[in-house]
Amino acid sequence: MDKIEHLGIAVEDLESAMKTYTALFGAPAYKVEEVASEGVRTAFFRSGPNKIELLEGIGTQNPISRFIAKKGEGIHHVAFAVEDIRSAMERLASEGFTLLSEEPKPGADNKLVAFVHPKDAHGVLIELCQERAD
Amino acid sequence: MDKIEHLGIAVEDLESAMKTYTALFGAPAYKVEEVASEGVRTAFFRSGPNKIELLEGIGTQNPISRFIAKKGEGIHHVAFAVEDIRSAMERLASEGFTLLSEEPKPGADNKLVAFVHPKDAHGVLIELCQERAD
Repeated sequence: MDKIEHLGIAVEDLESAMKTYTALFGAPAYKVEEVASEGVRTAFFRSGPNKIELLEGIGTQNPISRFIAKKGEGIHHVAFAVEDIRSAMERLASEGFTLLSEEPKPGADNKLVAFVHPKDAHGVLIELCQERAD
Repeated sequence: MDKIEHLGIAVEDLESAMKTYTALFGAPAYKVEEVASEGVRTAFFRSGPNKIELLEGIGTQNPISRFIAKKGEGIHHVAFAVEDIRSAMERLASEGFTLLSEEPKPGADNKLVAFVHPKDAHGVLIELCQERAD
């Protein structure tokens, strides 16, 4: 858990949210990326060592649209940077945390990612992410 | 917006949540602090340059207990570090953001703080915080 790598925010309309967060940070998104495997479009902003990821669902059958339907727009997850995602997953599993996948998966922004179930972390969806070597 | 200073997480029971986050980070909270003016008890954990603040409401008439009653436990706010909170507040007001107070207020962890209304930031409660000089 080296730092907060990014904070993921679920939004209904990416273009509208990008305008808002550009005004908030006084600087535009540095990257817009579609992650087709997750059914989301994303935009990344920098805040010093951290990033803010805006996420818009594509269609309705994706985690972001389901989250917004249930809770409204807002903070969706927090991602922590780890050096070795497999060893972090093993450590957390041994502490009794439920991981949402057995293996890390490719995520946005050239990362390997895995999630901890929010029921184990007081309602917080926690992502582990490791920079990919390639 | 120099970095994410901390992420605030609303929890029902601070002791129980401290055990969970100690297991998650592999290290205990470095500070437990009551902020009587806000009706909350807080515990802080480090993640590199960032902090995680667990917040438990005292009684029922406080922002954390109201949040949990409405949305359940989970991420409550994100705080960004700023060097000069008054100038940050002026800049955001000039961009059309609604601030929840006209003046910065004393917050936990020796900070001056101010909040942006979540309706202006796609459901995200944003805190600005500046280290106090004293």
